[in-house]
Amino acid sequence: MADVEERAQILIEALPYIQQFAGSTIVVKHGGSAMVDHELRRAVARDIVMMHFVGIRPVVVHGGGPRISAMMERLGIQPEFVRGLRVTTEQTMEVAQMVLVGSINKEIVSLINAEGGQAVGLSGKDANLIRTRKMESEADLGYVGEVESIDAGVLETLAASGYIAVVSPVGAGPKGESFNINADHAAAELAVAVGAAKLINLTDVPGILADPDDEESLISTLTLDEAQGLLGGEDIGEGMIPKLESAIRAVEGGVPRAHIIDGRIPHASLIEVFTDRGIGTMISADPSTDG
Amino acid sequence: MADVEERAQILIEALPYIQQFAGSTIVVKHGGSAMVDHELRRAVARDIVMMHFVGIRPVVVHGGGPRISAMMERLGIQPEFVRGLRVTTEQTMEVAQMVLVGSINKEIVSLINAEGGQAVGLSGKDANLIRTRKMESEADLGYVGEVESIDAGVLETLAASGYIAVVSPVGAGPKGESFNINADHAAAELAVAVGAAKLINLTDVPGILADPDDEESLISTLTLDEAQGLLGGEDIGEGMIPKLESAIRAVEGGVPRAHIIDGRIPHASLIEVFTDRGIGTMISADPSTDG
Amino acid sequence: MADVEERAQILIEALPYIQQFAGSTIVVKHGGSAMVDHELRRAVARDIVMMHFVGIRPVVVHGGGPRISAMMERLGIQPEFVRGLRVTTEQTMEVAQMVLVGSINKEIVSLINAEGGQAVGLSGKDANLIRTRKMESEADLGYVGEVESIDAGVLETLAASGYIAVVSPVGAGPKGESFNINADHAAAELAVAVGAAKLINLTDVPGILADPDDEESLISTLTLDEAQGLLGGEDIGEGMIPKLESAIRAVEGGVPRAHIIDGRIPHASLIEVFTDRGIGTMISADPSTDG
Amino acid sequence: MADVEERAQILIEALPYIQQFAGSTIVVKHGGSAMVDHELRRAVARDIVMMHFVGIRPVVVHGGGPRISAMMERLGIQPEFVRGLRVTTEQTMEVAQMVLVGSINKEIVSLINAEGGQAVGLSGKDANLIRTRKMESEADLGYVGEVESIDAGVLETLAASGYIAVVSPVGAGPKGESFNINADHAAAELAVAVGAAKLINLTDVPGILADPDDEESLISTLTLDEAQGLLGGEDIGEGMIPKLESAIRAVEGGVPRAHIIDGRIPHASLIEVFTDRGIGTMISADPSTDG
Amino acid sequence: MADVEERAQILIEALPYIQQFAGSTIVVKHGGSAMVDHELRRAVARDIVMMHFVGIRPVVVHGGGPRISAMMERLGIQPEFVRGLRVTTEQTMEVAQMVLVGSINKEIVSLINAEGGQAVGLSGKDANLIRTRKMESEADLGYVGEVESIDAGVLETLAASGYIAVVSPVGAGPKGESFNINADHAAAELAVAVGAAKLINLTDVPGILADPDDEESLISTLTLDEAQGLLGGEDIGEGMIPKLESAIRAVEGGVPRAHIIDGRIPHASLIEVFTDRGIGTMISADPSTDG
Amino acid sequence: MADVEERAQILIEALPYIQQFAGSTIVVKHGGSAMVDHELRRAVARDIVMMHFVGIRPVVVHGGGPRISAMMERLGIQPEFVRGLRVTTEQTMEVAQMVLVGSINKEIVSLINAEGGQAVGLSGKDANLIRTRKMESEADLGYVGEVESIDAGVLETLAASGYIAVVSPVGAGPKGESFNINADHAAAELAVAVGAAKLINLTDVPGILADPDDEESLISTLTLDEAQGLLGGEDIGEGMIPKLESAIRAVEGGVPRAHIIDGRIPHASLIEVFTDRGIGTMISADPSTDG
Repeated sequence: MADVEERAQILIEALPYIQQFAGSTIVVKHGGSAMVDHELRRAVARDIVMMHFVGIRPVVVHGGGPRISAMMERLGIQPEFVRGLRVTTEQTMEVAQMVLVGSINKEIVSLINAEGGQAVGLSGKDANLIRTRKMESEADLGYVGEVESIDAGVLETLAASGYIAVVSPVGAGPKGESFNINADHAAAELAVAVGAAKLINLTDVPGILADPDDEESLISTLTLDEAQGLLGGEDIGEGMIPKLESAIRAVEGGVPRAHIIDGRIPHASLIEVFTDRGIGTMISADPSTDG
Repeated sequence: MADVEERAQILIEALPYIQQFAGSTIVVKHGGSAMVDHELRRAVARDIVMMHFVGIRPVVVHGGGPRISAMMERLGIQPEFVRGLRVTTEQTMEVAQMVLVGSINKEIVSLINAEGGQAVGLSGKDANLIRTRKMESEADLGYVGEVESIDAGVLETLAASGYIAVVSPVGAGPKGESFNINADHAAAELAVAVGAAKLINLTDVPGILADPDDEESLISTLTLDEAQGLLGGEDIGEGMIPKLESAIRAVEGGVPRAHIIDGRIPHASLIEVFTDRGIGTMISADPSTDG
Repeated sequence: MADVEERAQILIEALPYIQQFAGSTIVVKHGGSAMVDHELRRAVARDIVMMHFVGIRPVVVHGGGPRISAMMERLGIQPEFVRGLRVTTEQTMEVAQMVLVGSINKEIVSLINAEGGQAVGLSGKDANLIRTRKMESEADLGYVGEVESIDAGVLETLAASGYIAVVSPVGAGPKGESFNINADHAAAELAVAVGAAKLINLTDVPGILADPDDEESLISTLTLDEAQGLLGGEDIGEGMIPKLESAIRAVEGGVPRAHIIDGRIPHASLIEVFTDRGIGTMISADPSTDG
Repeated sequence: MADVEERAQILIEALPYIQQFAGSTIVVKHGGSAMVDHELRRAVARDIVMMHFVGIRPVVVHGGGPRISAMMERLGIQPEFVRGLRVTTEQTMEVAQMVLVGSINKEIVSLINAEGGQAVGLSGKDANLIRTRKMESEADLGYVGEVESIDAGVLETLAASGYIAVVSPVGAGPKGESFNINADHAAAELAVAVGAAKLINLTDVPGILADPDDEESLISTLTLDEAQGLLGGEDIGEGMIPKLESAIRAVEGGVPRAHIIDGRIPHASLIEVFTDRGIGTMISADPSTDG
Repeated sequence: MADVEERAQILIEALPYIQQFAGSTIVVKHGGSAMVDHELRRAVARDIVMMHFVGIRPVVVHGGGPRISAMMERLGIQPEFVRGLRVTTEQTMEVAQMVLVGSINKEIVSLINAEGGQAVGLSGKDANLIRTRKMESEADLGYVGEVESIDAGVLETLAASGYIAVVSPVGAGPKGESFNINADHAAAELAVAVGAAKLINLTDVPGILADPDDEESLISTLTLDEAQGLLGGEDIGEGMIPKLESAIRAVEGGVPRAHIIDGRIPHASLIEVFTDRGIGTMISADPSTDG
Repeated sequence: MADVEERAQILIEALPYIQQFAGSTIVVKHGGSAMVDHELRRAVARDIVMMHFVGIRPVVVHGGGPRISAMMERLGIQPEFVRGLRVTTEQTMEVAQMVLVGSINKEIVSLINAEGGQAVGLSGKDANLIRTRKMESEADLGYVGEVESIDAGVLETLAASGYIAVVSPVGAGPKGESFNINADHAAAELAVAVGAAKLINLTDVPGILADPDDEESLISTLTLDEAQGLLGGEDIGEGMIPKLESAIRAVEGGVPRAHIIDGRIPHASLIEVFTDRGIGTMISADPSTDG
């Protein structure tokens, strides 16, 4: 019975966090090992369903880079470059959309449904959720877009009826064409648009590291100012840049806290949301308040 | 981090139970040590609030025998007997009501509110929640009543707005007079009237014992038939009779499961609802399904 | 038939008042003889139910001083004094709460229900209706509190479903402890918080008297300025001070009219609300408008 | 003050009736002196508004025979007869509709609005409220119709938003043409269709008389059987026939009570609804219950 | 099949207009030949019903001058004049109201119902829809009024339940008396009060003509400034003045576009709303936007 | 103007059909040339949006065979056969899902959005819309499924908020795996589940032909019996079998009419729904009623 009492104790320790986030939206950027590893992705699905059942409205945004590359290779599509930059041709865009919307999104939907949730997959084109403009750059990079505006109506409709939205980062262009958008950026814009209480980014590192080569050098908390300083500096690894940009954008847009956490830990987002253990890096306007 | 992962694992193991009871009502009969001991009663309040925040509608019904006796003694009121049976005089009834409604009920309300809930205390007289008739017996026992009917409208109103009802076992007589009603019986009738998914009775024993003198002889599950047989037999301790009657009445009235559990274990009701550990005795129409 | 026509005429003369207050809240401070006398208290209950059925939302706040003292005496509790001021000890507070919440409140609830209403008793602790802080004073007066804030949500919930709230003046302290609060003051704060159209105080005098010793010297109307002047003066009887303070607080807080009326007259509040006869003293920001 | 207390007493005696009819619909057939006399018709309007404000949904149906005849005379239209029966020609129908819908209906609407109600006039053609078929008879009587069906949707819409419907007895024929329908009959059909609690017919006699020539011979109550017997007999005055038919039809259709009362008494319908004084004749399925 | 495809093409060309006006209110001033000619008035009814079924909320306001004069002549009522101006006596007002409310309004209601709509006729007196004051003028013109205020609540109630309102231009005076109001003016005030997207005035001319004697000189569009200039000038025919005033008032009051169109063309309002063909004259604050 | 009047006439002729289907659901099975040809697919999108704006709830189900085959060829996947039957391997299923959900579905969504609709793409896996079981057959055909049950909740949620659902025929297997389901069959099951008023199947033939080689031999209407007879016979072309099965299943399931029409005609579904021209073959339980 001692064991059972301890279990009860652990459950009850989640109560303050359940109370704190009841009725809030939490945006989870899904990706990396957490989306690939068989056990980890089941754990993420459970975390999402757990959030839903304790009164949180989770929104999942996923990426999918490696899977797109693999499919392009299978189809024998050669990458194109303009002035040294990779270009998203119409053909590439079509493949990306098929992989993101037609394959990865449905896998996540299935995993959530298997855990007892009711997931509905969306792309940014559905109900014009993510209106997108062509990203400006010196070279013509083709169908690479950035978020123009979010029309979160369909998210509200689905959440109000108990459905969990899973969003693929494909944007609706002005003429109905598809644009590839960075999933970290899309997650931040969605978090801002729905007034999320948190943005959680599942990555393959422990968080932001003071020394990118030293996993022990984790920075637990960053103010917005500190985060912006870091972004401008040289100590930030290239892969971390869009994730840090995403966190900064979210906090600038009014999301109280953005977290870059280690998706390789099972139930990482559950730990982040429901326990008092710091996990990964938290960026917030005012880090003095915990949670 | 290992510890944290284990905590996450324990949390996630509650998910199936959270899903199962989302939207259901669970009636908790509060009493015994769980209502007296300082730590235990805080734990019960937390369990109730936890249920509320994961989507369950808890209704608390409390007893209070010893406190009523103590107050009567302080007031110098002599117990009256008719043919050897204790009588509830008008004076006794007034004291009982003051202690139950004015003292114990408010303590439970305060404890729940302290844990972040929004509790509202009710007696059976408020909104005519429990209409009561005089209990028939050979001797005139005074203001001892039994439930005539439940008008659960006020419970629905409060639950729909997020309030947690705490009910004192004082019934409304036909002329507006107060009646003392057995709290175990009141809990069962309320559970039936609101279509509860569970009735949990917090007692000071491990459950129903095959041998009342041997705490190791716990009977884990009873079918309705078995429970009725036990009630008619001689092996049941006197104190257990109203609790067993209550469980039988609830299950007969359509409540799928009634539990008589050991309120001396911290978070006993949480363990009962959210873990796979059997605790106490479960009476159900068909015990083959677990939960 | 002549008699019947006259009765119809009297009924129809209530129509403008029924129209005026349809949908409004009226707070009735119940106390004095109106709460003690058998016939009078039935009449008050009927008045409350009448208000409810013609579309008014009545809220009842009751006091109970003499009953508390009587119970303390029966329990042999000696009054305590600090620097000559009466102290509310923890023991006294417990008795006060039992009498107010467990006895008087339930009597009023029963009387209203007997007349066809659906009353629900509340204390300031239920749903944290009245958050209270310790009253500041030179001497430590114990559990004597003043209103910190009102959370009127539960009143709205109950009224919207057709229930009539009856409130005991026991406040919720910051640590969940109970505080004794003056019922006149509580009624004023509740009237302000719910945006009441009227506060009616049932007293044992004809109203505010120019000469406290002369019942013929009734002051029919007072502006807020006049009332404040009177409060600062010496012509006001001591018992009238909290009632006048209550009326002033209500009007300052936006309640259009506060009435101090003679609860010894049967159906005094009905007369006040539904006839053109002035009864007692009306305090209003602008007394030029009648009603 | 004694007078005021008596007034309060009279008001409070209306409470049981207010409770009884709260939320019910009462159909008032308006006509006779009550619709012509300046003071009486104001009194009727007040009664209607009073009903509305105490939670009743009144529906007014009016007649208008003499006014139609007067207008026809002014227009020099000669009455037509077929086999000795009066015929409603297209021209006559047009005049009847103008007088009923364009003149009398608007007067009643104005009177109700002047008393603080919000009346909306309707004919049976609006929203196809009263679908009508040509009355079958040996001779062709032209545009004389009988009720085919009631579509009470518009009455529900208006009542739910607080409007008081005033209905002219003009029916919608199958091809959109207008039909003259008997106002007593229309009132009965409307009462049945809306599930009215009462049908009140304002007439120029004290009620149904055992001896039509003796106003003292009022029959206070009639069972449905007795009323049907009376209708088939010879003791019933011709003018009373449609009124008795209307009452019988209403009660047969499920309206608990139909009243034929003396509209010459000011506030007759108020007296009928809100006092215990019998007024006129009540026809009910089971007259043993009063009210 | 070629013909069918063309029909489909025409249907689909209405789509942008259906989208544009979905959920909007359009006020149609009905009058002239469109209200008299048998085929035209059926076509107007169909247009109204068509608007309703594609998601527009139509409100119809009708006039009726010639019919009133004809009835007055039949009744032998001599027109009165004061200082050369025609006077609306009480007798005239009664006739006008009977003809407008009791005759013309019901005809339009019937026609709409025959096409599958659910029309409800209203005057400005119903629910105090159009509160009216006596028109100021040097001579006493009797019951000639101008709009004081609109209480559009009943229009909202009816539209929300799918009913189509048909309004007669009879206003409610301060004492409940009736006033004759110009139907063009009433239509404009109603359009402003309900926030209409369009006001369409069905007339017997092609629109506003540069040369009143030359039907070919149609002015297709007018800015508000141009319209105001025209009103002050001499080139505007007398009959057109109230129609132009109405359009100006509507646009000044926020209605984006007011149209004066040729009601002699079958389905003129349908053409105006659902095709790209200019028809009649459009007055708008900014005519650069079409539609 | 003559042309304009004719256009108005054509519009108004659609009114009875708009009235008839207001509030109904119509399921459109999209496929064949109508889904491939640039102009035709824009026309279908417009028809869908037109239906939406006139109050119909359209649900689109699409197929996509040729596109899946083309992608498989590009990926060098060899078709597998068991006992001569084509097998859907896991690899094939993945490609099919990517093409259907990630490519074709999004194109249709974009086209509808471009016409002013708000489309949301769904697969049968989203919200477990289409639960699927493995199709039974002698040979193991792999991931070929048939509909087990429809959970139409998400369709109701989306339609109630004004979104147009576009469904890909990919089913959710019992373990969360994907199954390929025949789009014609899926459309029929969805039509039955939502209680559709019509099922329209866009094909590349004029309808069901008495002689499959003679396009002039169109059968306009079939009773359910006749359709079942035809299905069992030899005169039905192989490609038509699933379409006829779909129509029969829909009508058997309570859909009043199922239509197999020629999607090569622009706006074919608009013609079917909004004109009196027969187009293609209509299967209905009772063909005597037209429409």
